[in-house]
Amino acid sequence: MGKFLNVVPVSETVAAVQRIAPDPAREDVPLGSAAGRVLSAPVPADTDIPGFDRSVVDGYAVKAADTAGAGESVPAMLQCTGMIAMGVTDTLNTVRSGECMYVPTGGVLPAGADAMVMVENTEKAGDMVLVRKPVAHGENVLLFNEDFRKGEVVLQAGRKLSPQDIGVLAAAGCSVVPVARKPIVGIISTGNELVPVTQKPSPGQVRDANASMLGAFLTGYGCVPKLYGIVKDEPAAFESAVSRAVAECDVVLLSGGSSKDERDMTAGTIARLGEVLIHGVAIAPGKPTIIGRIEGKPVFGLPGHPASAYIVLIAIVRPLLDRMLGLNRPEIRTVQATLAMNIPSQRGREDYVRVKVEEGIVTPVFGKSGLLNTLVKSDGVVCIPAGSEGLEKGSTVTVILW
Amino acid sequence: MGKFLNVVPVSETVAAVQRIAPDPAREDVPLGSAAGRVLSAPVPADTDIPGFDRSVVDGYAVKAADTAGAGESVPAMLQCTGMIAMGVTDTLNTVRSGECMYVPTGGVLPAGADAMVMVENTEKAGDMVLVRKPVAHGENVLLFNEDFRKGEVVLQAGRKLSPQDIGVLAAAGCSVVPVARKPIVGIISTGNELVPVTQKPSPGQVRDANASMLGAFLTGYGCVPKLYGIVKDEPAAFESAVSRAVAECDVVLLSGGSSKDERDMTAGTIARLGEVLIHGVAIAPGKPTIIGRIEGKPVFGLPGHPASAYIVLIAIVRPLLDRMLGLNRPEIRTVQATLAMNIPSQRGREDYVRVKVEEGIVTPVFGKSGLLNTLVKSDGVVCIPAGSEGLEKGSTVTVILW
Repeated sequence: MGKFLNVVPVSETVAAVQRIAPDPAREDVPLGSAAGRVLSAPVPADTDIPGFDRSVVDGYAVKAADTAGAGESVPAMLQCTGMIAMGVTDTLNTVRSGECMYVPTGGVLPAGADAMVMVENTEKAGDMVLVRKPVAHGENVLLFNEDFRKGEVVLQAGRKLSPQDIGVLAAAGCSVVPVARKPIVGIISTGNELVPVTQKPSPGQVRDANASMLGAFLTGYGCVPKLYGIVKDEPAAFESAVSRAVAECDVVLLSGGSSKDERDMTAGTIARLGEVLIHGVAIAPGKPTIIGRIEGKPVFGLPGHPASAYIVLIAIVRPLLDRMLGLNRPEIRTVQATLAMNIPSQRGREDYVRVKVEEGIVTPVFGKSGLLNTLVKSDGVVCIPAGSEGLEKGSTVTVILW
Repeated sequence: MGKFLNVVPVSETVAAVQRIAPDPAREDVPLGSAAGRVLSAPVPADTDIPGFDRSVVDGYAVKAADTAGAGESVPAMLQCTGMIAMGVTDTLNTVRSGECMYVPTGGVLPAGADAMVMVENTEKAGDMVLVRKPVAHGENVLLFNEDFRKGEVVLQAGRKLSPQDIGVLAAAGCSVVPVARKPIVGIISTGNELVPVTQKPSPGQVRDANASMLGAFLTGYGCVPKLYGIVKDEPAAFESAVSRAVAECDVVLLSGGSSKDERDMTAGTIARLGEVLIHGVAIAPGKPTIIGRIEGKPVFGLPGHPASAYIVLIAIVRPLLDRMLGLNRPEIRTVQATLAMNIPSQRGREDYVRVKVEEGIVTPVFGKSGLLNTLVKSDGVVCIPAGSEGLEKGSTVTVILW
């Protein structure tokens, strides 16, 4: 590997990464811990929802035809023959023409009735009810299986389960949920200059910020990070750490090692234990990224600068995780906004520029790419495609939010 | 409480809810589990970052002045006096005028040098280095404490910690992180028609979808939900369940009970054990919401329809949680988009209309408010203010994403 990397376009890199993605594995989890997981199989309703015609208001069950023409001055008069209790069905309850029954919100519509009059639009006079507003057939009622039919798929596989999805699964009787198993992602930090967070760096040393950052991202993305700590730039020790991580994890991230010597050691180790697929990606920051495979498992050499590592994580590692999770829609939050100034870019590489977004205006965050503070001062990144020489002031751009 | 609720505007309701919010409590957690938590105190850097002038490229440390005027045809010639190893500082390393030293990415700049020339812009000839491009003072170098100064606050309190924030805390030496304690939120389901998820509903019965949905939201929002199961509509049993939940939790949500009898039981119980502050909010859906306080703790009576309950959760309960977590920026994701058709609204109430957002176009999701399927078919809601009679086709609206 010479001084100049033979870089691969981002789209090609992502395609290569997705080709080597292990198939999603699945497991069953209780409904109470399924939120945020990715559904691995379609879930059918085990029953009709609702299982009966159900009132959605407090009021009177009627035959809608009986209320035709009713108004403030000429109310319809119906005889109230009783009231429905919650949670039970009495097959003797029937509404005939000229009759009505009181039904609370959520109660069962009695046989014969086909609509509900809200109590606000009625007046009681003895056992007679004056209806001051007509209702249409089906009004104020959820009809039998109007929400979901028995056997109908309520949620498709590949969906990341939201709180509302959990509610729907509950209604469908899915108390044990089939989800994608969380990928286990090993993180090995390399670099003789690195010290753990708990240690005060001496001159020449820096703390290992990347491992904590990568771990936090992975946890939030539905993976299980496994941190192997800092391995010094010593090939035998490094090789043995990588072998162990590959054996114990589904994916391995090698973090740090931005210098040529370190990159070469990373690439050499991957080549000895497996194969290097890509060394150098047409992305900025993040060019020195290495992608390989050992014993069928994807192994990444990430750049050492935290900002570069993070951008490679979201642009290249994330599509791998999406595939492994079976996610049908990438978990990316974007926002459209207007660029406050020109951003020049070098043709031939995908440029990720950190930006702030305030009230619809996008401003680049200046600062050297090695600075941590640009990561926390920015709201996300704007991607400038490889074929572009930059973005123009005033144009609408898509910001990928952090 | 009559048939017609004396409704309170949403803004007033939110203000009332925030007034009764318990103060945030704090705890310390290890850095590895701090992501997604809310920082409860500002964190200063315990050291200068970086602690030394640091090269961000592989190349040669030089005095920038020595490279002035260098170019392809007339390179500057400098004598290479050695190379810097990673992670150590040798105080004897010095670059004098006419000299340079090799420094790998991340290495310490030797004394006397003030810039780095990238190796790509040099050529080695014996112990001489030909520099083909001039560099400016500070170029390709992160200067001592350029990222953060010792004692400088790296992150302010009230911030929900992102993965990048975790990286910054790691660099700042914050291995134990002060965060807001997770509020414990009790959930009691009421309604004689409710059965647990594991039970097949008989005619007249429905599964308790809300408790699972509320629990999933709360977990994702950084709280600890505590589910008390289904309590039948029996005042003594209900009162004892509420008392127990109030004793064990920071906030209590009473879910279900959409009928007038159930609402009255909920309000009556809160009144007997404490005080009802609001009964009825000018919001649709969600009008029958009850807000009270028992033993200084907020207690909510949520509407029974899942969609209504969810909207009250995000519009009214969430601001309480934000206050309890000390969150300085509400955790709401919004997107601006164009309305595909008119949406009429009733003046005097804040209307939350479920919508789909596709390629910048917002379309209302039609369907009765009691349907679960409208929740999962929608991407979020558009809020129509109480003073408005609706939104016009073609206007730009803000969608609150689920």
